[in-house]
Amino acid sequence: MHFTSERRLDDDVLEREFTLDEIPGILWTPASVSAPVPLILLGHPPLGLGKMYPRLAGRARHVVADGFAAATIELPGSGDRPRWAAIEQARADLRRAMQAGGPVDDEIVDALVLPLVEKAVPEWRAALDALLSLPEIGGPVGYSGGVISIGIRLALVEPRVSAAVLFAGSLVPAAMFEEARRVTVPLHVLLQWDDEGNDRQAALDLFDAFGSEEKTLHATMGGHAGVPQFAGEAADRFFVRHLK
Amino acid sequence: MHFTSERRLDDDVLEREFTLDEIPGILWTPASVSAPVPLILLGHPPLGLGKMYPRLAGRARHVVADGFAAATIELPGSGDRPRWAAIEQARADLRRAMQAGGPVDDEIVDALVLPLVEKAVPEWRAALDALLSLPEIGGPVGYSGGVISIGIRLALVEPRVSAAVLFAGSLVPAAMFEEARRVTVPLHVLLQWDDEGNDRQAALDLFDAFGSEEKTLHATMGGHAGVPQFAGEAADRFFVRHLK
Repeated sequence: MHFTSERRLDDDVLEREFTLDEIPGILWTPASVSAPVPLILLGHPPLGLGKMYPRLAGRARHVVADGFAAATIELPGSGDRPRWAAIEQARADLRRAMQAGGPVDDEIVDALVLPLVEKAVPEWRAALDALLSLPEIGGPVGYSGGVISIGIRLALVEPRVSAAVLFAGSLVPAAMFEEARRVTVPLHVLLQWDDEGNDRQAALDLFDAFGSEEKTLHATMGGHAGVPQFAGEAADRFFVRHLK
Repeated sequence: MHFTSERRLDDDVLEREFTLDEIPGILWTPASVSAPVPLILLGHPPLGLGKMYPRLAGRARHVVADGFAAATIELPGSGDRPRWAAIEQARADLRRAMQAGGPVDDEIVDALVLPLVEKAVPEWRAALDALLSLPEIGGPVGYSGGVISIGIRLALVEPRVSAAVLFAGSLVPAAMFEEARRVTVPLHVLLQWDDEGNDRQAALDLFDAFGSEEKTLHATMGGHAGVPQFAGEAADRFFVRHLK
């Protein structure tokens, strides 16, 4: 893990860019730390860290204000990472299917999401190894947002993730429902009731499927990008309740 | 409005019982008030104030700690109020239908709920007149919990109610869906995902029906009486956001 830049946000937050095996990432920590802080991994859609930066930095500020560190890494095939032809093909297929207005074939969803999960999850776990070796970061670890199937897989296979905020805002392959049934960590699931790119009933079915004894569905009005501020604050409180 | 008793809870809360046109009620206010405080009406199921007292007093303590007054009145046909044969018949019919395990006929739900709404809502509005005339209580007013159809009607017809926490935990007559579509105040809707006496899909349809621009569905695990403490706290924060 190599830090490549360092700056302060608002005096209170230290923002550092890093690379880990050529994967770019960003770490936000409290500017002054007296003891190791818990870590929240910030997920995001595969649009590139550059494009997602303003939203990620906004979330990181809140997380750090609550006494956590926050970190994220670039997804495979996004941002400055090498293009990934198969994923771009699947994305084009999805766009075409959605523009046609019909239901999206399972094959398209599988082709878009499953390879991303397979490749990204080991990278996030490797990032976790590196991040938790830093003296200013301890446990426990939470995962928040982004591609929900990545969050499901991470919550299932990574024992260091002890609570997750999942955003039910992207299509979920049928195979991930089986994994969801085996997830047991506390979950806070955000749903935008009128998400234009998502299937509400499938999101409700997914919430029902999760095996976690504590799971909360927090549905608010509006489209995919319209999560209201109070819903973000409720998610922050979920992490405070479980990780501190 | 006649106060019939007065005592302190935990030093910080003044609890007064009252009657209003022979309807018993309870008012909780901060023990020391420098300016009029907003009011939250605490709804409850028709089991009698005596039986509901511990839960109501617990909610009132939280509400008063947030700087509100809280008040409730007995429902028609419950507690020390005169028996109401029609409602008791409907309740027996409902019990029989649920024990038989089949779906509950619309007629039974209508017979149980609609007369209660018709009779209770004017009583709560009269209580509001009396409560808002007290110097220690100002506006705005919130309504919280209890029989959801009463909350829907109150939110629709009572302009002084400016935000409501509704508990999707009882059967809703089809006619109330039409009223729900015309409700416009901010709503925070609680749903117990495995509520044994409720129809989850009907609750989701009801949430969808509400006309309010700001509405949040907060679904947590467990049965009817198992609303977790953090869900109650989230509802409290909703009122702080809208009434203060």
